[in-house]
Amino acid sequence: MRNLTLLTDLYELTMMSGYLKENKQDQWATFDVFYRKSDTIDMCIFAGLEQVIDYINNLRFTPDDIDYLRGLNIFEEDFLKALENFSFTGDIYSVREGEVVFAGEPIMTVRAPIFEAQFIETAILNMVNHQTLIATKASKIVRQAKGASIMEFGARRAQGPDAAIYGSRASIIGGCDSTSNVIAAKMFDVPASGTHAHSWVMSFPTELDAFRAYARLFPTKCLLLVDTYDTLGSGVPNAIKVFDELRAQGYEPLGIRLDSGDLAYLSKKARQMLDEAGYPDAIICASGDIDEYILASLNLQGAKIDLYGIGTKLVTALPVSALGGVYKLAELMEDGVMVPKIKLSDTRIKMTNPGFKSVYRLYNKDGMAEADLITLKDESIDETSPLEIFDPIDTWKRMTLKDFTARELHVQVYDKGKQVYFSPTVREIRDYAKKCQSEIFEENLRLTNPHVYKVDLSQKLYDLKHELLTKKGNR
Amino acid sequence: MRNLTLLTDLYELTMMSGYLKENKQDQWATFDVFYRKSDTIDMCIFAGLEQVIDYINNLRFTPDDIDYLRGLNIFEEDFLKALENFSFTGDIYSVREGEVVFAGEPIMTVRAPIFEAQFIETAILNMVNHQTLIATKASKIVRQAKGASIMEFGARRAQGPDAAIYGSRASIIGGCDSTSNVIAAKMFDVPASGTHAHSWVMSFPTELDAFRAYARLFPTKCLLLVDTYDTLGSGVPNAIKVFDELRAQGYEPLGIRLDSGDLAYLSKKARQMLDEAGYPDAIICASGDIDEYILASLNLQGAKIDLYGIGTKLVTALPVSALGGVYKLAELMEDGVMVPKIKLSDTRIKMTNPGFKSVYRLYNKDGMAEADLITLKDESIDETSPLEIFDPIDTWKRMTLKDFTARELHVQVYDKGKQVYFSPTVREIRDYAKKCQSEIFEENLRLTNPHVYKVDLSQKLYDLKHELLTKKGNR
Repeated sequence: MRNLTLLTDLYELTMMSGYLKENKQDQWATFDVFYRKSDTIDMCIFAGLEQVIDYINNLRFTPDDIDYLRGLNIFEEDFLKALENFSFTGDIYSVREGEVVFAGEPIMTVRAPIFEAQFIETAILNMVNHQTLIATKASKIVRQAKGASIMEFGARRAQGPDAAIYGSRASIIGGCDSTSNVIAAKMFDVPASGTHAHSWVMSFPTELDAFRAYARLFPTKCLLLVDTYDTLGSGVPNAIKVFDELRAQGYEPLGIRLDSGDLAYLSKKARQMLDEAGYPDAIICASGDIDEYILASLNLQGAKIDLYGIGTKLVTALPVSALGGVYKLAELMEDGVMVPKIKLSDTRIKMTNPGFKSVYRLYNKDGMAEADLITLKDESIDETSPLEIFDPIDTWKRMTLKDFTARELHVQVYDKGKQVYFSPTVREIRDYAKKCQSEIFEENLRLTNPHVYKVDLSQKLYDLKHELLTKKGNR
Repeated sequence: MRNLTLLTDLYELTMMSGYLKENKQDQWATFDVFYRKSDTIDMCIFAGLEQVIDYINNLRFTPDDIDYLRGLNIFEEDFLKALENFSFTGDIYSVREGEVVFAGEPIMTVRAPIFEAQFIETAILNMVNHQTLIATKASKIVRQAKGASIMEFGARRAQGPDAAIYGSRASIIGGCDSTSNVIAAKMFDVPASGTHAHSWVMSFPTELDAFRAYARLFPTKCLLLVDTYDTLGSGVPNAIKVFDELRAQGYEPLGIRLDSGDLAYLSKKARQMLDEAGYPDAIICASGDIDEYILASLNLQGAKIDLYGIGTKLVTALPVSALGGVYKLAELMEDGVMVPKIKLSDTRIKMTNPGFKSVYRLYNKDGMAEADLITLKDESIDETSPLEIFDPIDTWKRMTLKDFTARELHVQVYDKGKQVYFSPTVREIRDYAKKCQSEIFEENLRLTNPHVYKVDLSQKLYDLKHELLTKKGNR
C-alpha cells in the first residue's frame, strides 16, 4: 500500500505545530465534510471511503519524511518528534459508498484531537471529492443510457494514473458495467472490456485482412471497429463478410463499433445493414465524446446503440471537473466539553451547520425518499408520530410526514482509532448505489431542472444555529 | 517506484495477442503522440516525460499480473508466456519537458516492434495529456499574473492523489513559484508554502487570540488570514494590531491573505489600511476560484495583490479539463522496410501526417520564433539559404525566411531500449519553459484570439502526404 502521509497541504502541518505550541493538540474537534449546492451540483453518489480508510490505516511519517520537514526550517524539534508516533486515534462517521447524498449534508464527520483531525483534511477531501465527482457523473450517464450498457474507457485522458484507476472504480460504482483499464479491473475485481483500435486495422494490408485476423483471434467475441476508412462504404460491408465467414465456421459474431461520424445516422444505417444481412443480434457499440446530454439526444433521435464506450467526459467529469467538498469545524472541546461552532459568512450558503450531527433519509410508505433531515447526534426520530419538517430558509414552507420511516445515513468507520467498518466490494457498492437511486423520485433525478430534493434541519439544530448566529460577536 | 504495467486499456493486450498470433509482433512501427487544434487548445507547455521514463523503466508483468490476465480467459498461453519477459526494446524521441509545442506536432515519437509500441500507448497518453494540460494552464495563469507570484494549492480538489502530486509538478513547470502539497514539494524538490486556515482562527476564543498565537509561532513569517469573520471590520484591524506587537518585538510581518469576497475592492482597501498603519511592505495574498481570466480582470481593476493561491481551476484546468492527445500510426515495417502510413478521415483535422518525422522551430535574427516546420527525419535544413514555407492547407500562403536559425525540438530518449536522455530537475525544467515562452511573440501568447502560430510541413512531407491521400484505395 502506498504511503500518502505527506499528501497534505503545508498549512495543515504549520497549524498542527501551532496547536502543539499552544498546548491545544489534545483538544478534540469535530469536522464535517460536505459540499455546497450550485447550479450544477446537488445530488451526488458518494465514493472514495475505501481509499480514505487505506490512507488512515497507512498514516506514518517515515524518518525520511521527518528529515524533509526538518529541512524546511519552519518546525521545532518537539513537533517533529510528535510526528514520529503519529497515528489517528479519533472517530470517523461516514455515509456508505454508493449512497445518494445532497449538498449541505455532512457526508463524513471526523471527531478527533485537533492535531489529528486537522492533518487528514487534505487527503480526505482529495479522495472523496474525486471519486464522488466521477461516480456522480457515471450515474448521470448511466441514467440517460436507458438500459444500454456503459463501458468506461477514459484512462488515456484521465488526470494521471490515479485518476484513471480510481476514476474507473468510481465509474463502476456510479453504474458503468465495465472498464477498459486493466489495472483497475484487477485491483477492484470488476469486468474489463475492449476490442481493437484503428492501428490494428492500419497494420494490415486491407481492412478485410484486419477483420479476418481479429475473427481468427476471437471467434466467439468478434466485435469489429468499422470506421477506419469508410463506415458504411467499407467498414460495415467488410464486417458482414467476416461475420458470414464466422457463421460458416459455426460462430456467431458479437457486433461492430462506431467511433466517429454522426452516431445517430450511422447506427440506424448500420443496424439496417446488419439486420438485412441476417445479424439482428449483432450489437452496435458507439464511442466518441459522449456524455449524458449526447445520450439523451441520441435516444430522442432513435439511435440504435446497444453499448457505449465513454472516455474523456466521464473520467474527467467535463464540463464540471471538480467537486468543491469542504472540511469545516463544527465543534471544539472547551474545558472538557464539546462546544458547537459556526463559520459565519456574508453568503448564506457559506454558513456552516454547528454541532455533532446525523443525517436521516425519510421515506414514505412506498419506500420512496421524501426528504433528508439533518439532526443533532443525540436526537432520535419517532416514526410512530407525524413529523413536521420545514425549509431551513423559507421556514413557512412546511410539510408533515405520516406513516414514514427514517434511516440514518451515517455508519461509524473508526472508533477511537480502531477501524469498525469494512468496505464492501466494488460490485456490492454498485448494487447499493443502484438501490439508493431507485428510492429517489424520477422528478429529482431529471437531467435538466430537477425538482429540488428537500434537505431540512431538525428544530433543535435550527434553533442552535440561530442562537449561534445571533450571539456571535466575540471577534 | 510503483509498477504501473497494467495501466493500459485491455484492447492494447488483445491487439498484442493478435499481433503475436499473426506473427507480426516483431514488425516495427512508428507512432506519433500529438493533439489536435481546437477553439481552446493550440499552444501547450509539454510535461510528463520523466514519468513516462519511470513507467517504461519499470515495465514488468508480475506473475500475479499474468495470472490475472489468464483468468480473463481470452488469452492463449504463448501470449502470456511472451509477457513474462516483456520489456521495451525500441526508440523514443520526444520534445523536452517545458518545451512550447503546438497542435498537430509530434511531441513524442515511439518506434519499436508493434507488440511493444502498441502496449505503451495508454500510459504515455495518460501521463503526457495530464501534465501537459496542467503545465499549460499554469503558464496561462502565470502570464496573466503580470509578475505576482503564484502558489499552487489544489490538492484537495485534484482528481485523486496523482492528480495532486503530478499536478503540482506540472504547475511548477508551467511557472508557479511554490505548491502547498508537501508530498509533491518533497518528491520534486520545489518550494512548499502555506499559512493557516479558517479552522485555526475558529479554534481560538477570538480572532485576535488566533492571530497572536500564529505570530508567536512564526514571528518572521507571519501571514494572517483575515476573512474568517469580517475582512475589513475585524480581520485587517486585528492583523495590524498583531503586526504592531510583532514590530515592538523587532519582527516585520509578512502580510495578510484574503480568501473570499470582492478581491479587487478588498485588496485595495486592505492595502490602504496597511499602508496607513505603516506596513507598505506587508504583502497581500489572495485566493478563491481564481483563473487566468479573473487575474486579467483583477489587474484591469487595479487590485493590489502580490501573491495568489490558486487551487481548483489550476489543478483541474477547468473549464477544459482534458487534453485530447492521441497516439497514431505513422509508419509500419513491410518486408523489412519502414513504410509511411496515413489515417484518412472525412475531417481534414483528423488526417494524420505520415512517416518518421522531426519538428524544427525557426527563429528570426532576434531569436524570436517565426514558425515550426514538420519535416521527414532524413531532411536537413540549410540555414544559409532562404527557406520558403507554406501553409499546408491554404498552400498559396507562403513566406520566405532569411537570416534564420532552425532548432530541432526532438531529443532521443531511448535507443533500442536503452535510456539515453535523463530528465533535468523540475526547477531546471521550469526555467527552460520560461526561456521557451520568451521566444514566442506576445501576439501568439494573447489570452483571447491569439495570433495563430504557423506549423507548416516541409515540401517533402507535404508531397508524401498528398501521394498517400491520392493513392489510398485498398480498403
